[in-house]
Amino acid sequence: MTGATSIPCLSGLHHRRNPLEDNPFFHPSNGFYINPSDVILAQVAYDLSAQSQSRVAYHRAGPRREIMYEPSAVKAAIVTCGGLCPGMNTVIRELVVGLWELYGVREIYGIPAGYRGFYSMEAVKLDPKAVHDWHKKGGTVLATSRGGFHLHKIVDAIQLNGFNQVYIIGGDGTMRGAVEIFKEISLRKLEVGITGIPKTVDNDVGIIDRSFGFQTAVEMAQQAISAAHVEAESAVNGIGLVKLMGRSTGHIALHATLSSRDVDCCLIPEMDFYLEGKGGLFEFLEKRLKERGHAVLVVAEGAGQEMIPRNESQKQERDESGNPVFLDVGVWFKSVLKDWWGREHPDELFTVKYIDPTYMIRAVPANATDNLYCTLLAHSAIHGVMAGYTGFVPGPINGNYAYIPLEEVALTKNEVNTSDHKWAWVRSVTNQPDFETNFKGQSL
Amino acid sequence: MTGATSIPCLSGLHHRRNPLEDNPFFHPSNGFYINPSDVILAQVAYDLSAQSQSRVAYHRAGPRREIMYEPSAVKAAIVTCGGLCPGMNTVIRELVVGLWELYGVREIYGIPAGYRGFYSMEAVKLDPKAVHDWHKKGGTVLATSRGGFHLHKIVDAIQLNGFNQVYIIGGDGTMRGAVEIFKEISLRKLEVGITGIPKTVDNDVGIIDRSFGFQTAVEMAQQAISAAHVEAESAVNGIGLVKLMGRSTGHIALHATLSSRDVDCCLIPEMDFYLEGKGGLFEFLEKRLKERGHAVLVVAEGAGQEMIPRNESQKQERDESGNPVFLDVGVWFKSVLKDWWGREHPDELFTVKYIDPTYMIRAVPANATDNLYCTLLAHSAIHGVMAGYTGFVPGPINGNYAYIPLEEVALTKNEVNTSDHKWAWVRSVTNQPDFETNFKGQSL
Amino acid sequence: MTGATSIPCLSGLHHRRNPLEDNPFFHPSNGFYINPSDVILAQVAYDLSAQSQSRVAYHRAGPRREIMYEPSAVKAAIVTCGGLCPGMNTVIRELVVGLWELYGVREIYGIPAGYRGFYSMEAVKLDPKAVHDWHKKGGTVLATSRGGFHLHKIVDAIQLNGFNQVYIIGGDGTMRGAVEIFKEISLRKLEVGITGIPKTVDNDVGIIDRSFGFQTAVEMAQQAISAAHVEAESAVNGIGLVKLMGRSTGHIALHATLSSRDVDCCLIPEMDFYLEGKGGLFEFLEKRLKERGHAVLVVAEGAGQEMIPRNESQKQERDESGNPVFLDVGVWFKSVLKDWWGREHPDELFTVKYIDPTYMIRAVPANATDNLYCTLLAHSAIHGVMAGYTGFVPGPINGNYAYIPLEEVALTKNEVNTSDHKWAWVRSVTNQPDFETNFKGQSL
Amino acid sequence: MTGATSIPCLSGLHHRRNPLEDNPFFHPSNGFYINPSDVILAQVAYDLSAQSQSRVAYHRAGPRREIMYEPSAVKAAIVTCGGLCPGMNTVIRELVVGLWELYGVREIYGIPAGYRGFYSMEAVKLDPKAVHDWHKKGGTVLATSRGGFHLHKIVDAIQLNGFNQVYIIGGDGTMRGAVEIFKEISLRKLEVGITGIPKTVDNDVGIIDRSFGFQTAVEMAQQAISAAHVEAESAVNGIGLVKLMGRSTGHIALHATLSSRDVDCCLIPEMDFYLEGKGGLFEFLEKRLKERGHAVLVVAEGAGQEMIPRNESQKQERDESGNPVFLDVGVWFKSVLKDWWGREHPDELFTVKYIDPTYMIRAVPANATDNLYCTLLAHSAIHGVMAGYTGFVPGPINGNYAYIPLEEVALTKNEVNTSDHKWAWVRSVTNQPDFETNFKGQSL
Repeated sequence: MTGATSIPCLSGLHHRRNPLEDNPFFHPSNGFYINPSDVILAQVAYDLSAQSQSRVAYHRAGPRREIMYEPSAVKAAIVTCGGLCPGMNTVIRELVVGLWELYGVREIYGIPAGYRGFYSMEAVKLDPKAVHDWHKKGGTVLATSRGGFHLHKIVDAIQLNGFNQVYIIGGDGTMRGAVEIFKEISLRKLEVGITGIPKTVDNDVGIIDRSFGFQTAVEMAQQAISAAHVEAESAVNGIGLVKLMGRSTGHIALHATLSSRDVDCCLIPEMDFYLEGKGGLFEFLEKRLKERGHAVLVVAEGAGQEMIPRNESQKQERDESGNPVFLDVGVWFKSVLKDWWGREHPDELFTVKYIDPTYMIRAVPANATDNLYCTLLAHSAIHGVMAGYTGFVPGPINGNYAYIPLEEVALTKNEVNTSDHKWAWVRSVTNQPDFETNFKGQSL
Repeated sequence: MTGATSIPCLSGLHHRRNPLEDNPFFHPSNGFYINPSDVILAQVAYDLSAQSQSRVAYHRAGPRREIMYEPSAVKAAIVTCGGLCPGMNTVIRELVVGLWELYGVREIYGIPAGYRGFYSMEAVKLDPKAVHDWHKKGGTVLATSRGGFHLHKIVDAIQLNGFNQVYIIGGDGTMRGAVEIFKEISLRKLEVGITGIPKTVDNDVGIIDRSFGFQTAVEMAQQAISAAHVEAESAVNGIGLVKLMGRSTGHIALHATLSSRDVDCCLIPEMDFYLEGKGGLFEFLEKRLKERGHAVLVVAEGAGQEMIPRNESQKQERDESGNPVFLDVGVWFKSVLKDWWGREHPDELFTVKYIDPTYMIRAVPANATDNLYCTLLAHSAIHGVMAGYTGFVPGPINGNYAYIPLEEVALTKNEVNTSDHKWAWVRSVTNQPDFETNFKGQSL
Repeated sequence: MTGATSIPCLSGLHHRRNPLEDNPFFHPSNGFYINPSDVILAQVAYDLSAQSQSRVAYHRAGPRREIMYEPSAVKAAIVTCGGLCPGMNTVIRELVVGLWELYGVREIYGIPAGYRGFYSMEAVKLDPKAVHDWHKKGGTVLATSRGGFHLHKIVDAIQLNGFNQVYIIGGDGTMRGAVEIFKEISLRKLEVGITGIPKTVDNDVGIIDRSFGFQTAVEMAQQAISAAHVEAESAVNGIGLVKLMGRSTGHIALHATLSSRDVDCCLIPEMDFYLEGKGGLFEFLEKRLKERGHAVLVVAEGAGQEMIPRNESQKQERDESGNPVFLDVGVWFKSVLKDWWGREHPDELFTVKYIDPTYMIRAVPANATDNLYCTLLAHSAIHGVMAGYTGFVPGPINGNYAYIPLEEVALTKNEVNTSDHKWAWVRSVTNQPDFETNFKGQSL
Repeated sequence: MTGATSIPCLSGLHHRRNPLEDNPFFHPSNGFYINPSDVILAQVAYDLSAQSQSRVAYHRAGPRREIMYEPSAVKAAIVTCGGLCPGMNTVIRELVVGLWELYGVREIYGIPAGYRGFYSMEAVKLDPKAVHDWHKKGGTVLATSRGGFHLHKIVDAIQLNGFNQVYIIGGDGTMRGAVEIFKEISLRKLEVGITGIPKTVDNDVGIIDRSFGFQTAVEMAQQAISAAHVEAESAVNGIGLVKLMGRSTGHIALHATLSSRDVDCCLIPEMDFYLEGKGGLFEFLEKRLKERGHAVLVVAEGAGQEMIPRNESQKQERDESGNPVFLDVGVWFKSVLKDWWGREHPDELFTVKYIDPTYMIRAVPANATDNLYCTLLAHSAIHGVMAGYTGFVPGPINGNYAYIPLEEVALTKNEVNTSDHKWAWVRSVTNQPDFETNFKGQSL
């Protein structure tokens, strides 16, 4: 086994004793502190018959015997960027409480409203009392926004305010911004620890086991599916159509489908599909409606984007994070389904009930599982930064918390593997068509 | 006090002993049976100083000492029409269980898919075992649809199938249809008892205290408001916009606003409003965003319909029940809000999160309060029909169940009285502008 | 129609204009103000053939054109006594917000920890900001306790602190105390308005339609019944036993049974029952277990108290409100059931799963229906006190809010009428034995 | 790396093609089938500086290219033993649906009421239609019981009925029984595949990541803690006392404490504690009540068992699985707390509200996360048995599903490690005393 993936360290700081040594609630017993040589394997499934095997490992997260900051000299900043996700407030709360209680840090600030808050708004002083019940609230009390990333303005503001620890909570665009901040800070030779905490309700970040809030989102998504199922069943030729979050990955749609089992067809960005002709969606729905009188269709928001006709302005549009603007696949689907039926069965009843539960899913507080996850995540971040690591992401790998280079995380994408078992299970639950194979067959 | 509002009775039937006399679970003790002279007052709030006072009263609902049907000769039909509403399945279940257990009726049929089911589908035989857990399910197991009202086809089918009791569950259009069925049946001199059970999640039926499912809907509506509040608070100049059911009346919007108290402005069909200028909505929102940084807007679906621009085809369109097609006030609002802000504050952040929770509200099972309501409603219907009443609606009046002529109910509309206390309370909770007064002021 | 039940008025105060006249959110339009001649009938169900009919009426609640307090001279005290009930915090919140926003009162105090707080603790100043989100919290932020009623200490404290409005929220014992306070205040000729707001999750107060928190409690009780049902069904000869609140009345048990329909037998204080012999509970359970393999038993806490063996000390014990100490009917039942089965079927499996959900029911926040109820209740109280009424209780009568003499309310008890329809419905749902009739049969 | 922990295989069967090859919903693409050489590492956290490192690995779960049963010759039995746990019905459902849909098995039977059902009751035929909505139900539709383990009767019944696949769902006692069954079957040289699926809501099974239903239980436990918190806060010197499941391990108590953060002290079986004297619980509570006026105490059911006085009969008693009878630590605690306070503060108010939510926690349906877990678990079991493995347990190890020898699982115990970070976190959240250290200090 080789060494672990290397994480940058701040170099200009001095070692000192971890104050956990004197904390009445911790016993730094044997094995309590994590050593630099403690690693987490990236891969746990092996084929023993294979010749050579990957041996990627990451530094294990947790408290170090020595830290690199004098707690009384720490000035920490926390910022949340992008859309909402269950658990954001728990992460903020635990960063504040952890810094305060574990390490005795007293200067902790929240940056309001995302990246732009660094240079355009007043930072908010935080302490355990202020954040006391935030883990029971949805959204982010700090407020958030998309865009607003001006590298130099941000780093200037960090420097000007004297922040020497920066905790950045956000999605893939935010993580890419964090990498730039980290690099600029290195260039300027500032002794500022930077950590990125990936926030993506879609679960589209790679390397880590899953992102926080994801399980809460799946739980809530089932309510929408259940309503769609009731609406479809109560109608004649009723279709319940649910759009779930997932711009480039279909994890929520997949998990909610597997959990609820009331879904007849699940469409995700990772899988092409087609509507007309043999093996197409219409044929499948026709058959399902004939057999059961109703059907439930779950569509991830990123599915079928290239099939939706765009006008010229839609072709140009970008959102504030620079992502291409997504068209509403649910609205489009509702309309093509109605057109199809009206064409094929002009005299028969048909109903499409379209549910877009996005905000009702992502604005709830984290459930117990995610709350615990957020706590461990925040504490892992704190221990790493206090130990002098920078430019890293804390996260669970194979159930253990580790530190991963920020840049590595920013480059990954966790897509649904449509050739593996989980997707096969979706298909065995829904019995939906195999568009890929069908398409090949059709095109012969 | 004068007599009660008269309810039609079937005349060709014979009196017989109520089988509840022999039911081991009922003690027809003194006061158990309801007499024809038992009435419920329509009005309970009086001004003692007023000269003359209304004395409208309705027959009290409940079991009669004598009934007009031989239970073994009853053939009952149950039909559900229109959109979903929490509690429909409970009403069906209790009609079946009540007819079976209380009166010993054994021929009970469900008509599938609304009015059209009478003449185009096979009726489904129902018994207590079949409907056992329906009260725990949302929607209607019988299925429902809009339209399909062909008077003669329906009455022919009733006659052909030998149904002599028909229980019709539906909204205002359905009740008007039920009146026609009742009249046609009278014309044809058929001995068929007809009762209408008003189903309107909007609570827009008059005379009765409230409609079933309404309280469940208000409960659920708060989840959407809460999500909108979180989204708005977590953004910079964030507006949470929630569209709630209510085509011609704003009861759900009003009650949900009073219950949740997170709403900044509540717009209902009963109250005109305007956007621009002094005292208008934009001015109010501008102020609220400045003060609090966010705002929550609740809009009943029927509010502001006349303000939404319609193209020619939209001007003509009618839904299957013959109602004018409603345009989506939420989608329109989202767009005018964005336009307004872009015009007034082109360089400032602004976010509108629009939530349409309609199907997630109406597809849930009834809560405990509504479940009990539905039980009492169904039993009241059964007792009335068995006693020979026809062309009536059972319903709570001042907390007591009564029988009301079907035609009278079909003509009413329960609107929010914007000059009474409850609406004043909404305004004192939201501190929203008084558009009516403002408008007058503005036009001077 | 005769006049309304008379409510005491403070006599030494001066009339003045209601500040609602100038409140921008209220339009004191025609009909807005309630006159002293406006009444609510106590009875709405009449037998037209009866000779003479009760004509009891109560003053209608609502704002009066003239009030008796100068708002800037009001010093209001709010106290909560006894056990928890969903909605207590909403009532407190609405009293504070209503006094402040509607009438401009600025001196509002919370008395901590019940009656004893008047003379042994510091009152807490309250304003709308402080109580902002209390309606989303269970329990009472003011804290509560039983007992501590020392009439003279309390009235001395009221006098000493200069409180001239006292809002007392509590159960039957608390209401009897409020009557004494009211009388002592009259004796001392103090110009202090006293109102009592009945808080009883059991719904055992008479005259009013129902008490606040009751519907929330019924909703929650179903969760416990559902769990008991699952436990019973999953076992061999499984009995799910649920104890529900209700010391002297069985309303929660009755309503939860009707709503959930998973109950095989419901025992309430208003109905005697017996265990052994023909027609007894054991015989019934024996039969039910044979038929279905399981049974669910719901017992109100006050049911069967006289059947539970008491030792000498238990015979003497009283709780702090002076009520006889209740023995735990659930624990007793669990043990007699096990004894019975062990005696009758020593070799057969048998399981009793006992659930006591009391605190999980009463500690939750009020649901939407109860939240609205609490708001209207609090506002009714404020309007009445401001108008100079004293020694009264606000409450809904036949769906309309009215003022009832405190003493009258303190004397009532709202028992389940076991000879009326609702109880007959319970029995037709459960098919449980008719102990009363059986008992008579047995004793022959 | 050495080979994987060996799993027994049935030897008398013949290899045949996996019917998944022909299943329209699966693409046995490259990597789809799992090879015998595919393993999952038991350990992922390593210290690179250590000399030698454990290399335990387990066979990876999943479909094999060749199977050992002719599907049409399979006769499968499923049995559930012991107490309830969220997800039991999902596991049963997925075993039935998976066997039927994936492999084409048609003879699938449920054994009612636990081990004794094998020899004393009729097996129930199951198919996908019968189990359709079981994943939405709490408990086990098959019913369950403790005890009833008669090895020879059970194996005789397996032989007599011709079952050649047996799926055993149960706790630690059940797993030990399954080992015996497996051995007896080997002795008798029967070709019967045996798999054990550990069901323990306490999460006390070792090797696997966690047990099914655990996360649902933690979610529900928070409701009880929240109610206890409200009760405690609303009282004067109020203590909310919650007993949570966990006979020998405190995982639910620990996780619920970390998730809810409303807990002042969490007591678990893995940690001794004491009441009186310096550093004891009473001293801690005294201080906490003085500071905050209330406290919440969470106690796992197995904590402090040796401190509860037992009478002679209690010393002897054993439950049906042979475990020593546990005394109710909650009831005991309630009484010692009252005694303590009455002794120390005879004139001050004090309230203990005790909540035992056990059955309301364990009788609910599985949440989304657990539902998915149960599905993967059941499918893993099926793939393993079909491939000829026997005497094994399927379960997640470091996030990947693997096969573990049944005997190995039956011997493990997953205790809370009170010297690691998670327990330190509990203590840093609660700030509760460190009884172990204190005790040592005290005894000096």
